[in-house]
Amino acid sequence: MTVAALIVAAGRGARMGATGPKALLPLGGTSILARAVAAFAARPRVGRLVVVVADPEPARAALGDAAGRVLLVRGGEERQDSVLRGLEAVRDSAIVLVHDAARPLVPATLIDAVLDAAIAHGAAVPVLPVVDTVKRIGSDGVVLATVPRDDLRLAQTPQGFRTELLTAAYASASREGVRATDDSGLVERCGGRVVAVPGSPRNIKITTPADLALAEALLRGEATEGEILG
Amino acid sequence: MTVAALIVAAGRGARMGATGPKALLPLGGTSILARAVAAFAARPRVGRLVVVVADPEPARAALGDAAGRVLLVRGGEERQDSVLRGLEAVRDSAIVLVHDAARPLVPATLIDAVLDAAIAHGAAVPVLPVVDTVKRIGSDGVVLATVPRDDLRLAQTPQGFRTELLTAAYASASREGVRATDDSGLVERCGGRVVAVPGSPRNIKITTPADLALAEALLRGEATEGEILG
Repeated sequence: MTVAALIVAAGRGARMGATGPKALLPLGGTSILARAVAAFAARPRVGRLVVVVADPEPARAALGDAAGRVLLVRGGEERQDSVLRGLEAVRDSAIVLVHDAARPLVPATLIDAVLDAAIAHGAAVPVLPVVDTVKRIGSDGVVLATVPRDDLRLAQTPQGFRTELLTAAYASASREGVRATDDSGLVERCGGRVVAVPGSPRNIKITTPADLALAEALLRGEATEGEILG
Repeated sequence: MTVAALIVAAGRGARMGATGPKALLPLGGTSILARAVAAFAARPRVGRLVVVVADPEPARAALGDAAGRVLLVRGGEERQDSVLRGLEAVRDSAIVLVHDAARPLVPATLIDAVLDAAIAHGAAVPVLPVVDTVKRIGSDGVVLATVPRDDLRLAQTPQGFRTELLTAAYASASREGVRATDDSGLVERCGGRVVAVPGSPRNIKITTPADLALAEALLRGEATEGEILG
């Protein structure tokens, strides 16, 4: 079973206060992007590595020696366009793992679990429980209800799919003008069955400078993973 | 208008891997509890400070000079029992701000905004938008749906109330055997109108060692607050 990793790194990082691509920001002596790529390059079953970026040249430089193993694809306007272009480059792989480069600390065990579930079930998403109280708010800013959260989960990446399933879901979304930032959501909308697997608290998404500081702290080993919160 | 802060610090911190109370763990040269207390002690309109702890003696030592301004109350079995005991000590205050000591970085502007809204509307809760994709999961671990999150918010503390409103809500919950970890939820269930105010990304809840590392990083100023994420 051939497996490709499709790493999306075309975001501009406006919320980081960065002027260049967020994925090229330094992290733990290398870059966010290089760490994300290294996580997948280290998994023996991942045979193909495709990285979607806004501009291939600085990404190639940031990847250093690892660039030789990676196919760099130029992204589109929005995330959905970028994934679509990346999918064209992984057509020959039976399974695709779509990952946001903004989650560079993804543990090997998590990649393996998503891959196993995607092979077994066709589509898999890693999730965490919701630890905060959830409120539903009216347009007037008044709380309408406290939402039961036992059956709610927060999605992470990588999300794993049979490639033909995800490709069909993206084609359907394009035809019908549906925009989404969540790959598994497009599969669900076509009636696909998506299986949840346990995510990792370490697999944080770097969106703000505070997130980057946490990632550095996690890498320094000051912060251990902690349990998944009940 | 008399205002009391009721700080709940009776948690055992099992998820921190700690053997003692979580609130007494060191943070930025002092303790989680001392920082939470200092945040409220610095607000001129807060006239009364009540702290609910499992064991008053070590808490008194951890608070140092600030202990003189604080009434320490012994907590109960669960958070709800602890808040109930604290409420008995703030009956003479018109407004009560209930805060979890596990959020020691609460900004002054946030305390003031919750207080203003509680005075104006009777009940107020600070909230953040939900930045991750939300899934609803079936008991078999299969995704049932991607949940629209535009009108969902994650609740923080302090939550502010007219004291008589919150006291009545707790009395009603006790009578009917309702258990909850969310104060505003008890007010909602009695038909009370709870107004949402913008929370702060800096106002993190310390639950795991990774959270504690992030709090240290925020205090060192390595991490700036960042925008609220869209």
